[in-house]
Amino acid sequence: MSLLLHFIDLFGTFVFALSGATVGVRNRFDLFGVFALSFVTAIGGGCIRDLCLGATPPAGLVNVEYLLCVIMAMTLLSYFQKLVFSFEKPALFFDALGLGFFAAFGANKAWQYTQNIEFSILMGCVSAVGGGCLRDILAGRTPVIFTKEIYASAALIGAAIELLGSANIIPEHYSVWLSIVTCTLIRLLSLKYNITLKTIANKYF
Amino acid sequence: MSLLLHFIDLFGTFVFALSGATVGVRNRFDLFGVFALSFVTAIGGGCIRDLCLGATPPAGLVNVEYLLCVIMAMTLLSYFQKLVFSFEKPALFFDALGLGFFAAFGANKAWQYTQNIEFSILMGCVSAVGGGCLRDILAGRTPVIFTKEIYASAALIGAAIELLGSANIIPEHYSVWLSIVTCTLIRLLSLKYNITLKTIANKYF
Amino acid sequence: MSLLLHFIDLFGTFVFALSGATVGVRNRFDLFGVFALSFVTAIGGGCIRDLCLGATPPAGLVNVEYLLCVIMAMTLLSYFQKLVFSFEKPALFFDALGLGFFAAFGANKAWQYTQNIEFSILMGCVSAVGGGCLRDILAGRTPVIFTKEIYASAALIGAAIELLGSANIIPEHYSVWLSIVTCTLIRLLSLKYNITLKTIANKYF
Repeated sequence: MSLLLHFIDLFGTFVFALSGATVGVRNRFDLFGVFALSFVTAIGGGCIRDLCLGATPPAGLVNVEYLLCVIMAMTLLSYFQKLVFSFEKPALFFDALGLGFFAAFGANKAWQYTQNIEFSILMGCVSAVGGGCLRDILAGRTPVIFTKEIYASAALIGAAIELLGSANIIPEHYSVWLSIVTCTLIRLLSLKYNITLKTIANKYF
Repeated sequence: MSLLLHFIDLFGTFVFALSGATVGVRNRFDLFGVFALSFVTAIGGGCIRDLCLGATPPAGLVNVEYLLCVIMAMTLLSYFQKLVFSFEKPALFFDALGLGFFAAFGANKAWQYTQNIEFSILMGCVSAVGGGCLRDILAGRTPVIFTKEIYASAALIGAAIELLGSANIIPEHYSVWLSIVTCTLIRLLSLKYNITLKTIANKYF
Repeated sequence: MSLLLHFIDLFGTFVFALSGATVGVRNRFDLFGVFALSFVTAIGGGCIRDLCLGATPPAGLVNVEYLLCVIMAMTLLSYFQKLVFSFEKPALFFDALGLGFFAAFGANKAWQYTQNIEFSILMGCVSAVGGGCLRDILAGRTPVIFTKEIYASAALIGAAIELLGSANIIPEHYSVWLSIVTCTLIRLLSLKYNITLKTIANKYF
């Protein structure tokens, strides 16, 4: 993995950890609770992916860098809450970037293990959104990805683009960037123009 | 697997997918949310079973037929909601049939991997009810199988009967049908006569 | 495993099963619901650990002794609820002892599979608190370990001490007892003196 991709990975993990820690603080979790929620948010998606791949132990649980991201996120939130919240807008950018990276990376890893298209796209999506989903379940609320905003669907598209490279339809060192950029852009544009997915609930309900 | 069993598998999956999609629509999930809930309900039980067996990647995530069941269920619900709900009674029949099939199939698969009776019965039950359980957790409600109606216990009995065949006490091509029919009948009779499991909550609480 | 450790294992499992069954009864679950919640509470943490280790099938699902613990817990609660509740204080002691045992045993098992310190400490903690966490999610409430009392953090410390033995810093037959005793004591003292972890929520929220 190139150095730039490695940085995106860590930045994304850090932003995910920050979002988990924030939810924990808002729910008045204690120190361990905030740590657990932050950690699960940061590495949960990748863990589900690795369990489904049979790639044990899950990478997120043996890599100290991710743990450090979580500890940094907690420290920052603990001492500089005002600062953290004044950076909400930039955080959305890094979150979207992380989303794109995790979707591409997850799809690529799943493809290397199985060469199955459906599975790899699903795993790309799960890598990207699974952590946030677990965060919401642990915090006792309906996962936000089910009801609001274009988030998981951007990850699905990103994962699918990455597979164009894995399947040698386009060069692999292009596909990873095309995947990340597309997913990030879809997410950011949907935020900027407030585009959401239609619900199919209607007058019958 | 015989053609008939294959049809029962797909019908059961379709009905499970429909139940997940319905809960999603009622909870006003967006398009992705309804898809995710429908998919998890349809293949979640089998996925937990396969993870416990170490049979990765889980069969439900690599088989396009299941994905098509989910897409069909969503399409049907999206365009013909009135029709879907007028078929609620028949849906209960196919749901019970699916319950029996998944219990028998799950127990059989677990037995082939482990030859452990306790584990195989539990896995039969988990295959049959795990998806619905995940659906309820994701939708933010207590799993209905814990509080209402004879459902999981019918699956336990079905799984146990299937193992009579796996252990060569009765011929295997009998046990699978005996298992499916018994589980389906228990479920349908409990619905018809409104039989529930006793709670052990009493005056002390 | 020595006979004494084996007894602690079964006692701890029994007390965990009892706590799950109690929550089920209080939530008016039916007979299957109480069984499922009790079983998940008793063996859930070890199952998550074994899935992360790739040690399938999970030990908790193939060992009939644990199933018997669950059945005994349910029977006891069903017939002698008053008695069970008059033993609430002793139950807290056995719960703390179980916590220590599961943390030590989980960390040790994870170390044998991976020789990874971070992973082994996390898995010791997950073994000890995972079941209670799943219990709370299934019962529709925020996991108590996130908000109240020193529980998971005692498990983290116990797991870390156990690894001193695994890494041959202190003799292994000392480390297991030192780990169990320390974790149990931290838990009991925090209960006795009502010590909790600070929350980092403050005036900003």
